[in-house]
Amino acid sequence: MCESLPGIKIAPWRSPLARALHRNRSQPYSRYFQLATVQADGRPANRTVVFRGFLGDTNLLKMITDTRSQKLDHILHHPWAEICWYFTITREQFRIAGELTLIDGNHLDSELQKARQLTWQDLSDNARVQFAWPHPGKPRGDQQAFSPPLPDPNHALPCFCLLLLDPVKVDHLELRGEPQNRWCYLRENPHTWSTTAINP
Amino acid sequence: MCESLPGIKIAPWRSPLARALHRNRSQPYSRYFQLATVQADGRPANRTVVFRGFLGDTNLLKMITDTRSQKLDHILHHPWAEICWYFTITREQFRIAGELTLIDGNHLDSELQKARQLTWQDLSDNARVQFAWPHPGKPRGDQQAFSPPLPDPNHALPCFCLLLLDPVKVDHLELRGEPQNRWCYLRENPHTWSTTAINP
Repeated sequence: MCESLPGIKIAPWRSPLARALHRNRSQPYSRYFQLATVQADGRPANRTVVFRGFLGDTNLLKMITDTRSQKLDHILHHPWAEICWYFTITREQFRIAGELTLIDGNHLDSELQKARQLTWQDLSDNARVQFAWPHPGKPRGDQQAFSPPLPDPNHALPCFCLLLLDPVKVDHLELRGEPQNRWCYLRENPHTWSTTAINP
Repeated sequence: MCESLPGIKIAPWRSPLARALHRNRSQPYSRYFQLATVQADGRPANRTVVFRGFLGDTNLLKMITDTRSQKLDHILHHPWAEICWYFTITREQFRIAGELTLIDGNHLDSELQKARQLTWQDLSDNARVQFAWPHPGKPRGDQQAFSPPLPDPNHALPCFCLLLLDPVKVDHLELRGEPQNRWCYLRENPHTWSTTAINP
């Protein structure tokens, strides 16, 4: 049942995930998933997040967030997360568990800081301007506060964060199988994953 | 900003949720949401679950699960959960936080036991037979093990659980607003909810 894949840099779950992204590409929401984290009080939190691709040639998933969002406190307190990604056309689910890293404007790693700036540049004006909106989650501000000048595409606002998820476990379920197909991928060490077919 | 609604039995977020369910009814997956829980080791778990309606005239959301699923351990250890429910046609999200109650075959409340049996009866043969499949998450069984006799629609299998979520907080985000609209509903006491418009 168990298959080791030593030395492979691209994890074995990347291939079925790439196929799902391709087959569901007609729906823009196929790039949205739900990110679960744990709050300081130990209760779970769950919200929809946009997938921003992988970091270079790594298996790290890119997302973005605002330093002012509640998510940030959760992550600083407890960096563990599980993504649940359901593809509606092919009827399959990926659950991706791993550790989160926040790259804010003060992060000292110059490569990651560069990745943060590039992610900012790649955003649409619409996505960028949301970081200039009033404080998320606070009582609703005036309509005018939601029409700030467009931020500079070449300089990320201080509240803009790149968020990376480093997966250690992936559970892939295909509802269309006969009966259904399900696989569990476990990271044994940084470059080795095991793959096991399991019961749905 | 804050509005109290004393004496109302149906919570104020039920109306926008009913509207979302109606406007997205052409897509069967509009009745799927992601349920986040916390594992015994303190890490989050997240999976897609089918909405089975509300329990009678309460605000409790019905789901089903299998006593053999990992979810069960998580819930027994930590009954708190957050649902993330994204509607693709109307582009809106409901985050519903609350406490879970498991109704298995040994649950002593006769009304809830009746609700469990009725939920079992309402399932399709396809949904019911999955509770007679081999142990979920274990190494893949023989193909034959996935073709058991169809279970009796009038007698729920012992591993069948009704799962109820009792909401205490609902966060509703409309991406289509100008700029976007977001509301926070908080349960102040069993029959009173506050409603606050907040920044997206």
